[in-house]
Amino acid sequence: MAAIYRRPGRRFHLLTRPTPRNPVTDKPYAPTLRVRYDETDQMGVVYHGNYLKYFEVGRTELMRHLGFPYSEMERRGALLVVVEANCRYRDSARYDDVLRIETAGTCPSPLRIRFHYRVVREADDVIVADGWTDLACLDRDRRLRRLPPEVREGLERFELSVEELV
Amino acid sequence: MAAIYRRPGRRFHLLTRPTPRNPVTDKPYAPTLRVRYDETDQMGVVYHGNYLKYFEVGRTELMRHLGFPYSEMERRGALLVVVEANCRYRDSARYDDVLRIETAGTCPSPLRIRFHYRVVREADDVIVADGWTDLACLDRDRRLRRLPPEVREGLERFELSVEELV
Amino acid sequence: MAAIYRRPGRRFHLLTRPTPRNPVTDKPYAPTLRVRYDETDQMGVVYHGNYLKYFEVGRTELMRHLGFPYSEMERRGALLVVVEANCRYRDSARYDDVLRIETAGTCPSPLRIRFHYRVVREADDVIVADGWTDLACLDRDRRLRRLPPEVREGLERFELSVEELV
Amino acid sequence: MAAIYRRPGRRFHLLTRPTPRNPVTDKPYAPTLRVRYDETDQMGVVYHGNYLKYFEVGRTELMRHLGFPYSEMERRGALLVVVEANCRYRDSARYDDVLRIETAGTCPSPLRIRFHYRVVREADDVIVADGWTDLACLDRDRRLRRLPPEVREGLERFELSVEELV
Repeated sequence: MAAIYRRPGRRFHLLTRPTPRNPVTDKPYAPTLRVRYDETDQMGVVYHGNYLKYFEVGRTELMRHLGFPYSEMERRGALLVVVEANCRYRDSARYDDVLRIETAGTCPSPLRIRFHYRVVREADDVIVADGWTDLACLDRDRRLRRLPPEVREGLERFELSVEELV
Repeated sequence: MAAIYRRPGRRFHLLTRPTPRNPVTDKPYAPTLRVRYDETDQMGVVYHGNYLKYFEVGRTELMRHLGFPYSEMERRGALLVVVEANCRYRDSARYDDVLRIETAGTCPSPLRIRFHYRVVREADDVIVADGWTDLACLDRDRRLRRLPPEVREGLERFELSVEELV
Repeated sequence: MAAIYRRPGRRFHLLTRPTPRNPVTDKPYAPTLRVRYDETDQMGVVYHGNYLKYFEVGRTELMRHLGFPYSEMERRGALLVVVEANCRYRDSARYDDVLRIETAGTCPSPLRIRFHYRVVREADDVIVADGWTDLACLDRDRRLRRLPPEVREGLERFELSVEELV
Repeated sequence: MAAIYRRPGRRFHLLTRPTPRNPVTDKPYAPTLRVRYDETDQMGVVYHGNYLKYFEVGRTELMRHLGFPYSEMERRGALLVVVEANCRYRDSARYDDVLRIETAGTCPSPLRIRFHYRVVREADDVIVADGWTDLACLDRDRRLRRLPPEVREGLERFELSVEELV
């Protein structure tokens, strides 16, 4: 069962704002990706479960642009694990479409990050899906630990874009 | 980032109820599956995005047991598409674990089904993840249509188990 | 690009032999699986890359039936890694098809296993794909090591069925 | 079981040649991609089956650079289906690694394309995997047809780079 829903007669949520940019480097932090053939299903559109992988691409690149790549965090013993995920499907994406993954994060507590995502089709700036994931931070022994403070501070600098995304 | 969260010091949600059974055939409708190697990630547990695939196995088998296999529905021009999905991760599943996918469905409107899921590790009856998906029904031209009435009626017979699942 | 090839005008390789059986327990060791929706692509058939996952299901169950589950081997420090894989696509499999994964193994050297596979559609016993994978055995430090002797001996008991499969 | 093999004591196949370039546009046609978290498995490296997806990224981008995007070919009724695939694993790739997919194609007959691939880790120019796939061309009714002549001619212009790749 695919993610292909569209209200008949009109398009959803045309975006007019530009891609969010990193306020420090002024580079856009929203990565783009091209839909691969294996990511489609027999309805001819992207299989709905694959959007959680796209969300992960979004937060990976956001964290890299903030200066703490997740691969580095994991090596240092701060593992982020997903505790809840939510995705709303608004339109369908197809093979070879270029998608832009807009991401912003908040830290509602010292133990948790919430990332918000919008998956936008580059060709017409239509939102294909949006959603959020809550992540907790674990140490090497898989026990809950506080988020590294520089991660929290980095994400707080993006709070405005979070407001825009929600 | 994996789905591996567990509160330190105690286990989550021990199940004591038996597997739900089909009230007509008295066969259990909860399929089991074995975690495949490719479904793990470098944290050593099932990648969180794969639970949406397990949910789909659950609703596929529920619908088959109710007498309307989804492959048949699709051939007849009633396509189910996911409009929203939610998953909470409560424990981690590992390679070669046998998981039981418990599923129940409700029809909040003639246009929509909500399925609820519990992914349970067979070895110790611990809930690994639970969640829900909302699906809409489309015709061959991808327009919204009403659910086939027999599907609605079949699901309504399971309402009690829905109450148990939520 | 899907795996859907069929010579026009005739079917491939009708199987007439029964499913291979474990000579010790007389249980069939060929697992079956049902094609999941996410495993299809926009051609309406199973994406060709997914057959390598099906092959892995085949060798996992063969090794379990021989008495040394791979999950146990890995815990004891004998890791099997794929060094080469080959797959020929003969017909297409579709969503909800039941597939039987027939597997046999040989040990051409003390350092290497070759598994042979046939993916057969249960409904009509037609071979959908076949192929092989070569695996090497590593220790915990990722250095080449000899295969555990009981694994070699167990596989040798299946040599006849290897002859049948190739 | 992962694709992680490396001969102890030395590295494999250091590449010294530059990335192949499109002789017409002089742009490199070798796309790069970053390994996603879901593409790893519990051995901590890319799952071996995922290289067939990377190969597909390679031939998709090669065909786009030659001027006939595969999405366009499929819309016009020339479907490419994989009839055989082969992959040798030479080293392991890890989460967040950037990989370059070098691709070249030949047409051994008017009915078939063979693509050759090398997956190279950008950081140190080491070949992680290489292989090939044979593809046949089908029409909308899934019957064998000849390749569009412009595709054959386009690929022939790359024959030299094929020689380099094999």
